[in-house]
Amino acid sequence: MDIKELGELGLIKKLAAQFATSHPRIIKGIGDDASVTLQDETKYLLCTTDTLVEDIHFSLKYTPSYNLGRKAVSISLSDIAAMGGTPTFLLVSIVFPPTTPIDFIELFYKGIKEKAQEFGVGLIGGNTSSSPDKIVISTTMLGEVPKDQVLFRKGASVGDAIYVTGYLGDSALGLKVWQQKGSTVIIDPFLKDAMLAHIDPHPRVKEGIIIAERRLATSMIDLSDGLISDLRHIVEESVVGAKVLLKQIPISTSLKRWILEHPQDIMLSLAGGEDYELLFTASPNNARLIEIMAKEIGAPVTRIGEIVPKELCITVLDENGKVVPLTTEGFEHFKQ
Amino acid sequence: MDIKELGELGLIKKLAAQFATSHPRIIKGIGDDASVTLQDETKYLLCTTDTLVEDIHFSLKYTPSYNLGRKAVSISLSDIAAMGGTPTFLLVSIVFPPTTPIDFIELFYKGIKEKAQEFGVGLIGGNTSSSPDKIVISTTMLGEVPKDQVLFRKGASVGDAIYVTGYLGDSALGLKVWQQKGSTVIIDPFLKDAMLAHIDPHPRVKEGIIIAERRLATSMIDLSDGLISDLRHIVEESVVGAKVLLKQIPISTSLKRWILEHPQDIMLSLAGGEDYELLFTASPNNARLIEIMAKEIGAPVTRIGEIVPKELCITVLDENGKVVPLTTEGFEHFKQ
Repeated sequence: MDIKELGELGLIKKLAAQFATSHPRIIKGIGDDASVTLQDETKYLLCTTDTLVEDIHFSLKYTPSYNLGRKAVSISLSDIAAMGGTPTFLLVSIVFPPTTPIDFIELFYKGIKEKAQEFGVGLIGGNTSSSPDKIVISTTMLGEVPKDQVLFRKGASVGDAIYVTGYLGDSALGLKVWQQKGSTVIIDPFLKDAMLAHIDPHPRVKEGIIIAERRLATSMIDLSDGLISDLRHIVEESVVGAKVLLKQIPISTSLKRWILEHPQDIMLSLAGGEDYELLFTASPNNARLIEIMAKEIGAPVTRIGEIVPKELCITVLDENGKVVPLTTEGFEHFKQ
Repeated sequence: MDIKELGELGLIKKLAAQFATSHPRIIKGIGDDASVTLQDETKYLLCTTDTLVEDIHFSLKYTPSYNLGRKAVSISLSDIAAMGGTPTFLLVSIVFPPTTPIDFIELFYKGIKEKAQEFGVGLIGGNTSSSPDKIVISTTMLGEVPKDQVLFRKGASVGDAIYVTGYLGDSALGLKVWQQKGSTVIIDPFLKDAMLAHIDPHPRVKEGIIIAERRLATSMIDLSDGLISDLRHIVEESVVGAKVLLKQIPISTSLKRWILEHPQDIMLSLAGGEDYELLFTASPNNARLIEIMAKEIGAPVTRIGEIVPKELCITVLDENGKVVPLTTEGFEHFKQ
């Protein structure tokens, strides 16, 4: 059997996890947003690695190389943020065909550097190599978190409220518009925010640290695959279920206006990936503290549902209290 | 201008180094075998990343996937060894076409796991992704070293002796034989060691730690690009020159016998890459201590020359005291 027949790269990822080695200093290896290992008496070291393949994870048709560099950093920053950690150092490797213009590489590294500096992250390593075909980018980000502040996907309890930062679905809407327009120039001012959200997401590092420092959450993950897919990781790891209210999901003015003409695209807020917002669960007692935090950070932090017993799985209810069907097929349609 | 016209990926690497961000905790960023950053009061954190591209860095014609996994780990281990460090954790990502057999991936991870365990290294992260074309492997290895033991490429002084561990040129000979035979079965018992050296190198982690702990060396690097190329990094960083005696370079029985029929291949010991031995410089006062170490580790540690003033560059002398010409062209011929 080959991978194509197996058809599910997730299975291969599980395979890799099975092959993970045990080690006395590993607190959490493969299977969360970042690995957690013992650094010293008070801190954990966080590590996350991401791979971006041309025409699978990004397209040069609508991603300028400067933005590609910025986004590669953001994706990794978001993983550190999801653990409540502070990012520290970054390694970036890029494989590219020999016909790549030097400008492209220069701008790529400029994007890497600027985004890293914006978050106080030091670029400490990397490789460049030629490739016969597509561009492949590989990033590893390190971070740190005080031992008593780390947040995992595991930890949600029945009765906890479910929160998200920011607006959901913008990146998926942006991708849709980029794909339709096939241009690197933003020509539609009305959709500008969504288009920018896709090529230059803003990871919630500051917010993740505040949530961890103030012990506001019981579990946390970043939204890379889409709300339902990522919520599934939380409920599986925490051995619980979740109920989400569709009308509570925060969506931007851009997506609201888009939905007027494309009502089915409300699903982008449930299934669209790459928002790089934070999804977390919290005791209902923390509601007031979370409101205060939202005001401080100047971004929405919205309660979208609650954790329920495992038997209830994940349920999304529309404004009439009807269950929104979550078939894999319906979702795959929206996934990149 | 594109990369092909520029023709030298080393330049791009330099470009990346220029874009490295400064950070108060970076002791050494891009430009040594591993980055060195402040971990706590007594230790430095070491990080190294490597990328292996199919048909550029390896060929599946003669590298079984199990060995590919092992070798990917060894390459990174060798970088940590070159800093005098102890490897701790590993992240491995692999991009492969959807037609890849599942067996291949299973054996790849088995190789990763076994080699990592052999050196007490924990596998803490990774990614799998499909690719339209070639396999790309990306590894990041972490390690640690006491602050007062770290070794850099910089540090060699005029009068220092130059040493190497093990035998040089075997991996390059092995590659040559594999390429000629184009098979994954070792059919020539006489060349077995060289063929194995290429597909399953043994990084000198234990030796690197001993050299660092006993303060035997003034500078160190691992031999990945070939003796002269790697020595060039030492002399450039240390602002010195080097004189090497060709007949002092330790070569295996396999290579000795091969040279009887192919005398020009003595150059493999100077220019052949991927030996993953250690090259270090040491005060002549340490000669006795280095002999003792060699006995303890049960492997040759051979003095091959000495550090001379910068103006003398790198000179290799044959057994008659004649200078061996080191033209780039002559070398490129042997490089992979």
